[in-house]
Amino acid sequence: MIYLDHAATTPLDERVLLKMLPYLKNEFGNPSSQHSCGRIAANAVTEARDKIACIVGVNPDEIYFTSGGTEGDNWALKGVYSAMGGGHIVLSAIEHPALLSCADELKKQGASVTTVNADKSGVISCEDIERAIRPDTVFVGVMSANNETGVIQPIEKIAEICSKKGIFFFSDCVQSAGVLPFYTNGVGGICFSSHKFYGPKGVGALYIKRGTPIAKLIAGGRQERGLRGGTINVAGVVGMAEALKIATDEMQKNNQKIRALRDEFIEEVLSQIAKAELNGDINCRLPGNANIYFKGFSGERILTLLDINGIAVSTGSACAAGAVTPSHVLKGMGYSDERAHSSVRFTFGRDNDREQVQKVIAALKEIVK
Amino acid sequence: MIYLDHAATTPLDERVLLKMLPYLKNEFGNPSSQHSCGRIAANAVTEARDKIACIVGVNPDEIYFTSGGTEGDNWALKGVYSAMGGGHIVLSAIEHPALLSCADELKKQGASVTTVNADKSGVISCEDIERAIRPDTVFVGVMSANNETGVIQPIEKIAEICSKKGIFFFSDCVQSAGVLPFYTNGVGGICFSSHKFYGPKGVGALYIKRGTPIAKLIAGGRQERGLRGGTINVAGVVGMAEALKIATDEMQKNNQKIRALRDEFIEEVLSQIAKAELNGDINCRLPGNANIYFKGFSGERILTLLDINGIAVSTGSACAAGAVTPSHVLKGMGYSDERAHSSVRFTFGRDNDREQVQKVIAALKEIVK
Repeated sequence: MIYLDHAATTPLDERVLLKMLPYLKNEFGNPSSQHSCGRIAANAVTEARDKIACIVGVNPDEIYFTSGGTEGDNWALKGVYSAMGGGHIVLSAIEHPALLSCADELKKQGASVTTVNADKSGVISCEDIERAIRPDTVFVGVMSANNETGVIQPIEKIAEICSKKGIFFFSDCVQSAGVLPFYTNGVGGICFSSHKFYGPKGVGALYIKRGTPIAKLIAGGRQERGLRGGTINVAGVVGMAEALKIATDEMQKNNQKIRALRDEFIEEVLSQIAKAELNGDINCRLPGNANIYFKGFSGERILTLLDINGIAVSTGSACAAGAVTPSHVLKGMGYSDERAHSSVRFTFGRDNDREQVQKVIAALKEIVK
Repeated sequence: MIYLDHAATTPLDERVLLKMLPYLKNEFGNPSSQHSCGRIAANAVTEARDKIACIVGVNPDEIYFTSGGTEGDNWALKGVYSAMGGGHIVLSAIEHPALLSCADELKKQGASVTTVNADKSGVISCEDIERAIRPDTVFVGVMSANNETGVIQPIEKIAEICSKKGIFFFSDCVQSAGVLPFYTNGVGGICFSSHKFYGPKGVGALYIKRGTPIAKLIAGGRQERGLRGGTINVAGVVGMAEALKIATDEMQKNNQKIRALRDEFIEEVLSQIAKAELNGDINCRLPGNANIYFKGFSGERILTLLDINGIAVSTGSACAAGAVTPSHVLKGMGYSDERAHSSVRFTFGRDNDREQVQKVIAALKEIVK
């Protein structure tokens, strides 16, 4: 199989699995238990939290373990909204469904939500965000990089705008974690999910800046400083910390390799396939992402035919898979339904190589013939 | 180590880990992806859901995967409360903190909550539950078996009462799953957590009866029929299903063995240690639980001294560990602070044996001397 769907999920790194295995075998204690078996687990959790905090560049007590990116998005938005006693919410129109659906839920409870579209390059304008902010705005959410186009957003500037106005700014870093360094200056919260950077599924982290008023999403025991109940997934957080460390240590090397493959792919597809166009800015995007419009073809059909050739790609995001509605991201960039339906996302990873790129191009040329 | 804290967590069954490993290695697809790599993962999730639904005795589309028992409790309570547009909540006073803290959160939003105490044997009276129900009651929650005393609750009768009145009845089955058969007749929802029955941590399930109005707790993509966003923890749900199957298949054999060990332990402790008393009913409790009051001794101190002897036990529940307040369960049974502070929970499991029981009794006799 040629796997070009790394934005959906990544294989678990073997080195990460090795780190997890002791906690799936002998070291099975509940980290909340007071005996030595529990303390071994608790120490592993502390070490994982410290490691992650160090990489994110925040304090360990600002890191909360979650079940993944979606829980992080929900907790941040519902938690801050509720703790602030309601108010106005600003989101980019190209956020992940986790944040957009959560905002829809809050709308039912009377929340006022403004969504800000991207331009044709896939970038959210800082001016548009600033204009959307009202005196009663309590939450601004703009992802660090989009999951469909990989386009990187001007987080630093938006953080500065929000910081000046004293508004909580949240940035979903699910796609950028392990690929770009974290940026937390003026950022009130970020979240990420382990399985996007070669860690295990079912575990993620939420950073919330100290002193931020936030309600619980999952109330329970005394875990996570009393703010998130539930027995901690020890093997999961150990694996996530190791995966993030590896991704950070090897970031430069992997990005360079992946970017070269992706650039070669885009160049050849655009030059060899008539009417193929890139969606989103070529320069300001994650190194592994190529989102391509094949005019006159169904994206679904290309996906299926590539799949028959043993090539895994996606149309839109996996979380929206099976949806009959066209990608809200491409729509949010001002593209037509037709373009959204005719686009395919190729996301490259560590294990891809040039031979695979050539095979995929050959298969694509055959398909569009 | 002699591990007598199976109510806090259990070791992962080796057979379960073997079933999980393919999904931690080659079969890493996102079950929401539309290519074959995703479909392999999706099939594994479907199989796990079918297996669990069959054991619980419900339809597969009534099973929702969660990150554990605490999320299940929160989702059920907040979800039903919100979908019903608010109302009155009845809970037993000995529920897990997951449900009680969640109710505390709802109280802040104006919810009216009645808690019903247990009697000295640890049992919740059906009459008390019936008396607590009001015309505006929308949720009744009584766990199937308590996590501190193991005392089994009269779920069948409470389900019947609620069913007649058309009120949603929820039963937290975290302690009984894999130990007692599931009872769902007239029950609107149950939840459980994989790591309590020799499955992995960080994964659980919620059963919600078809047609029940329930709001989302974690909104997001189209996963779990659009009701619970987030990439499914494939290895986790595969492991949970296998663990539940093994626990169910071997239930009778294991319960018989564990009950014999536990009974021997209780009998010898009560006869050989002066002033030791059992908390909760001897007959109507989970086979592995012994919760014992050591008059004049600190439970914490006994825990520590046993730990030095390589024996893992607990005072109260792990989720409340580190709490300075006495066990709300023993208090909810009408016991004094002194008794709650002087009690220790011993919970037996599959791998314990008679030699271990004798060693623990010898250590206890030494400690209280």
